[in-house]
Amino acid sequence: MYELTMLKSALADGTAFRQCTFEVFARRLQNERRYGVVAGTPRVLEAVTDFVFTEEQLASLTFLDERTLDYLRGYRFSGQIDGYREGELYFPNSPILTVRGTFAECVILETLILSIMNADSAVASAAARMVTAADGRPILEMGSRRTHEAAAVTATRAAYLAGFVGTSNLEAVYRYGIPGSGTAAHAWTLLHINEDGTPNEEAAFRSQIETLGVDTVLLVDTYDITKGVQTAIGVAGTELGGVRIDSGDLGVMTRKVRQELDALGAYNTRIVVSSDLDEYAIAGLRGEPVDSFGVGTSVVTGSGAPTAAMVYKLVEVEGHPVAKRSRGKNTVGGGKRALRTHRATGTAVEEVVYPFNAEPPTFNNLNVTELTIPLMRDGEIVEGLPTLEESREYLAKQLVTLPWEGLALSKDEPVLSTRFVGFDAQ
Amino acid sequence: MYELTMLKSALADGTAFRQCTFEVFARRLQNERRYGVVAGTPRVLEAVTDFVFTEEQLASLTFLDERTLDYLRGYRFSGQIDGYREGELYFPNSPILTVRGTFAECVILETLILSIMNADSAVASAAARMVTAADGRPILEMGSRRTHEAAAVTATRAAYLAGFVGTSNLEAVYRYGIPGSGTAAHAWTLLHINEDGTPNEEAAFRSQIETLGVDTVLLVDTYDITKGVQTAIGVAGTELGGVRIDSGDLGVMTRKVRQELDALGAYNTRIVVSSDLDEYAIAGLRGEPVDSFGVGTSVVTGSGAPTAAMVYKLVEVEGHPVAKRSRGKNTVGGGKRALRTHRATGTAVEEVVYPFNAEPPTFNNLNVTELTIPLMRDGEIVEGLPTLEESREYLAKQLVTLPWEGLALSKDEPVLSTRFVGFDAQ
Repeated sequence: MYELTMLKSALADGTAFRQCTFEVFARRLQNERRYGVVAGTPRVLEAVTDFVFTEEQLASLTFLDERTLDYLRGYRFSGQIDGYREGELYFPNSPILTVRGTFAECVILETLILSIMNADSAVASAAARMVTAADGRPILEMGSRRTHEAAAVTATRAAYLAGFVGTSNLEAVYRYGIPGSGTAAHAWTLLHINEDGTPNEEAAFRSQIETLGVDTVLLVDTYDITKGVQTAIGVAGTELGGVRIDSGDLGVMTRKVRQELDALGAYNTRIVVSSDLDEYAIAGLRGEPVDSFGVGTSVVTGSGAPTAAMVYKLVEVEGHPVAKRSRGKNTVGGGKRALRTHRATGTAVEEVVYPFNAEPPTFNNLNVTELTIPLMRDGEIVEGLPTLEESREYLAKQLVTLPWEGLALSKDEPVLSTRFVGFDAQ
Repeated sequence: MYELTMLKSALADGTAFRQCTFEVFARRLQNERRYGVVAGTPRVLEAVTDFVFTEEQLASLTFLDERTLDYLRGYRFSGQIDGYREGELYFPNSPILTVRGTFAECVILETLILSIMNADSAVASAAARMVTAADGRPILEMGSRRTHEAAAVTATRAAYLAGFVGTSNLEAVYRYGIPGSGTAAHAWTLLHINEDGTPNEEAAFRSQIETLGVDTVLLVDTYDITKGVQTAIGVAGTELGGVRIDSGDLGVMTRKVRQELDALGAYNTRIVVSSDLDEYAIAGLRGEPVDSFGVGTSVVTGSGAPTAAMVYKLVEVEGHPVAKRSRGKNTVGGGKRALRTHRATGTAVEEVVYPFNAEPPTFNNLNVTELTIPLMRDGEIVEGLPTLEESREYLAKQLVTLPWEGLALSKDEPVLSTRFVGFDAQ
């Protein structure tokens, strides 16, 4: 609402068409993490392109005057967006997006842009840590039931960006082409009872094998895990694809189940574990015979940081830098670009932020990567932006460039610092 | 995906049309809170009614056979749903929703039902604690930018259910009729600069007053708060509606600003505070001259508990109770109803859960409230269910029935216990 009341006031006092620059950045990394992952950029660009007001919506805006309603009726963003590509790493004060246009056209995008960037980056930032913790073993996203029904779909996308290999969410499969995965829940085993109501796990397993094939994953912990594994191999034979364990002490259980599978000759049957895993639980299972992980709640809720705390701030008006002076919330005025320096080995050294219209600073003996790329020109999405797959590969490569302590899970300072070059003291 | 692979297997082995009962419940309250708030029920009922598969979606389900696709093509839920009304309190093991029908029609609703109930109940459960902490002073929801763009709208609804008085989210105003609120951000003040680029806070305030009237709320902390307040009253006069403070030590600042406003004769100018408030920060401001609160991030993210941890479990097949035996995840089989007992004074005593088809147990000297009501019959939403406004009033009344320690913010056991009566030892 304040976006539209500001628009109304700005149309009235003549400031609506001042050329402005807004910036998306984060003052800090959540939970004292060491890096953040930019996600949601393509969704932002599409949402900005589609951001229009219907007559029905306009009719509900009874606090606006005719001039403002007219403006909104014809609204289409026609400005410029530059910023970090999706899958890029970010740190406190990284200028993640720079949005330029009139005050009127930029100010009403705040909530749209931030809600997408904050939600998607929160998930990707958590998911990347889980992928690191899994140390090469695949992770499936299966958290749809633990977040808003629409957020579930985009959370899956962000987790895949960060290196998850698949998802249980079929809408994400349909919409984004992410590999799907899923076999059975406990309900499947519980459904199979004898006529007297007693459990019949064997019938459940037999039916699942018949329909989904011997390569399926059987959920073995509905009753007794040891018996469950025995029954599973009894029914499926030693070529069973996998067993899933969703409860108990996963370290102890996976060792026991691996021994049991091996003793039964099912050397190739994989062990899938789920049950409230987060990056720490995954790391704790690093030495155990786990073949893949299923992660739900913790990834869709950002593992303790469900939002990325990005803000959208006015930093420049008609070429003049502007900045607020609120205690603890100081900002640096002026439009910005950023680059990252790397040693010859590839290791990242620091992020350098410089004025949007300045020449980039130069560095001796360091390689330079420009982080700010054009994303939208005159309201049109720039062609040839990276696909989800490309951004996924890009992120994987960027993580390798961090100094080794950057991938540790414990709390610490951001692993790269951000230096401002070429700004006046403000 | 596993919902549909289970459906495929069940259609193949003949179990798809077994009469089943699924139950939504929570094993625990998040963050050791003392009660939870049921929210999302009407959204679930609508979503279940609208849950169909398009031809385009069906074409993407390449892992299904023709029989399963045919089933989905004709799918409409035709079963029964009973459960807690929206705005009801819940505790561990409360049977929040009971879904009855064939295995096929019930099993594919898990993700849909849980994603809505978990998201909405997480927000409502956090918001109710903030309302208690605010002790009668109004709270506005303004967290849209800190959660997924669609989750923002329903989070607003859940916060309003829990007693928030309004929102900055216009889509929620439009869709749910929640009162809207919003005036200006820091960008508004920053936009108003002189030709040489120096700040002109006075111009920003003057323009806002001219457009929005003297009853508006001016944001006074962009530069220096003391000067900001002085400028605000200088421009607006002593009848200014309010000032908002969004940074700094809010306790100290509100006292200083109140003194300043009073010294300027603006006795009726309200003080609105925002800036990362949660229930604890609100409680900490109880003794300060705050007139209303704006709450963002913490409410839309459930204040540390972004999901309600509700699960959807098969509890009955063809009249037989079923339950899994996984360690730490035991459940009680069989369909269930619940009632709550109250003393003559109105204070709640306990929740009693009994078999779905049994007569309710009776109690001497205690009043009994049935918690389980019919919500859907043969796939149709029951008529006359409470409106959002009615549920909001209902919740406010229920909170008063809790033993006094139930409204404390600190961690503890659930304030009411849940007793199972009439179930066989399983």
